[in-house]
Amino acid sequence: MPKKLIIDTDPGVDDAMAILFALKSSELDLVGLTTIFGNVYTEQATQNALRLVELAGRPDIPVAQGALLPLVVPLSYVADFVHGVDGLGNTNPAPPHGQALDQPAAQFIVEMVMNNPDQITLVAVGPLTNLALALALEPRLVDHVAEVVIMGGAATVNGNVTPAAEANIFHDPHAADLVFTAGWPLTMVGLDVTTKTVMSDAYFTSLKAAGTRTTGFIYEISRFYLDFFRREVGLEGIHTHDPSAIAYVIDPTLFTTEPAPVRVMTDGLAQGQTLMDRQQRWRTPNPWTGQPLTNVCLDVDSARLLELYHHCVTRPD
Amino acid sequence: MPKKLIIDTDPGVDDAMAILFALKSSELDLVGLTTIFGNVYTEQATQNALRLVELAGRPDIPVAQGALLPLVVPLSYVADFVHGVDGLGNTNPAPPHGQALDQPAAQFIVEMVMNNPDQITLVAVGPLTNLALALALEPRLVDHVAEVVIMGGAATVNGNVTPAAEANIFHDPHAADLVFTAGWPLTMVGLDVTTKTVMSDAYFTSLKAAGTRTTGFIYEISRFYLDFFRREVGLEGIHTHDPSAIAYVIDPTLFTTEPAPVRVMTDGLAQGQTLMDRQQRWRTPNPWTGQPLTNVCLDVDSARLLELYHHCVTRPD
Repeated sequence: MPKKLIIDTDPGVDDAMAILFALKSSELDLVGLTTIFGNVYTEQATQNALRLVELAGRPDIPVAQGALLPLVVPLSYVADFVHGVDGLGNTNPAPPHGQALDQPAAQFIVEMVMNNPDQITLVAVGPLTNLALALALEPRLVDHVAEVVIMGGAATVNGNVTPAAEANIFHDPHAADLVFTAGWPLTMVGLDVTTKTVMSDAYFTSLKAAGTRTTGFIYEISRFYLDFFRREVGLEGIHTHDPSAIAYVIDPTLFTTEPAPVRVMTDGLAQGQTLMDRQQRWRTPNPWTGQPLTNVCLDVDSARLLELYHHCVTRPD
Repeated sequence: MPKKLIIDTDPGVDDAMAILFALKSSELDLVGLTTIFGNVYTEQATQNALRLVELAGRPDIPVAQGALLPLVVPLSYVADFVHGVDGLGNTNPAPPHGQALDQPAAQFIVEMVMNNPDQITLVAVGPLTNLALALALEPRLVDHVAEVVIMGGAATVNGNVTPAAEANIFHDPHAADLVFTAGWPLTMVGLDVTTKTVMSDAYFTSLKAAGTRTTGFIYEISRFYLDFFRREVGLEGIHTHDPSAIAYVIDPTLFTTEPAPVRVMTDGLAQGQTLMDRQQRWRTPNPWTGQPLTNVCLDVDSARLLELYHHCVTRPD
């Protein structure tokens, strides 16, 4: 039985790569996309989500639009310098034919999870505002979701927006802290692992060689993204952020994990930091004390992950 | 030429071990002790500093008493549960014969450094209040000190007071941030390395076998400290905190270091955290941008450090 999956997403080049990965995996059954700001504004994310399910020949998959703004902090920027102004590497694909649901993302998540108890895996690869709103609508979500997997945070390495903060958490630190302390079965796929898996230009070329519409599209949108990494990170290749979260859902044995409470810094210099308590033995209580354990990914078998991704996305359309 | 050293200290069992290490090293010339709260209250630290120079037969070494309170935050506790109420493992040694200088610690530091330009190494193994006060008295200190070495902070590991904070930084985070951003030649010897070097009970027994007053004293004060680590850390042995800072001054090749800006979180859940920017390549400026580089110790040759300590402190009195 494939796992039923909702992806909360701000496509975004690596979001698109992750969504197509999920659609091509025989282990997963994508039952909906919900959208959020981050790499682009939410409205653009919605358009891109619709484009992606149509590209994949799956216009039946519902798309629900999410929050336009973070819970508390202002929306400080969208990452057009990483993903292009269209979020798809400035490839400017044609507008989608379909439309988003009337239902907002948080309500869609609640209904899907409560109507399919213990069956829905939530994968969030953008800022966590929609998940926090869903928890506010229906706190019992924590007992009925099969699993929650997020791409975000940095436990043992620096962030990628500031030395403290990874972009998804930085965008809505208050929502992220609610997600980390909610008490559902949560896995964090953060920069600790996503920066360890690098997809080179040669890797994208080998995907393209499969000659499918999917691999051709991935190759096209990766051009701008590769340029960003070359220019601003000094890397010949990309960090494999969002596809790593999908890889975790397909095969968690790719990752080495450690269970620990994680809190998010909502203010100050370290705003957006995910701070993991690896010790859990303290003389006096602190803000980590008694908080639920997050399954934090700390290492990854990158070779196997790259193989898995290649294997899935090169399948015939 | 031995290096002239001032140790700013809150003795403290490992402070005492560090001071005796410095006194026994032929590479170092201890020219003064300044005192601070932390392991004990400042007045007790002063009494213990006087006791230590007298024990070592060096009552000529001046002791200057420092601040009684942190700059901004309240003094939340002293670590009598680690070091005993007397700071010397509840061994209750006789009161000292000598007295502290009339001069406060910050003024003593300023005068010593400015009168001996480029000759004084400042080693701070307690909260950094006195160093911050000295910088306020005389900002030119940064150009005239030979080197500043602190025991404190945690760059790549959890703290020891909270998941975020190491004790010395936690006690006065505002002072610590001033010290990290002052722009003097600064080395951080933090939990990243001090927790990697463990002195076992057998190690203390082998020190004691040298049969000197110094090694007998170290053995006696280590009893309570070993009990704390056994009981509350679950470790058969002690983390080698303050002696590691002295070891760095004697032989920096014991350590692997990385230069990076370090900022201290002064508020919020992460209060007292030392956050190191290992990347130093950011699209937009952040609070680490343009800050001076601290030489952060990230690894240590523990076997050689333990050998060096043994070699020095077992010398005849």
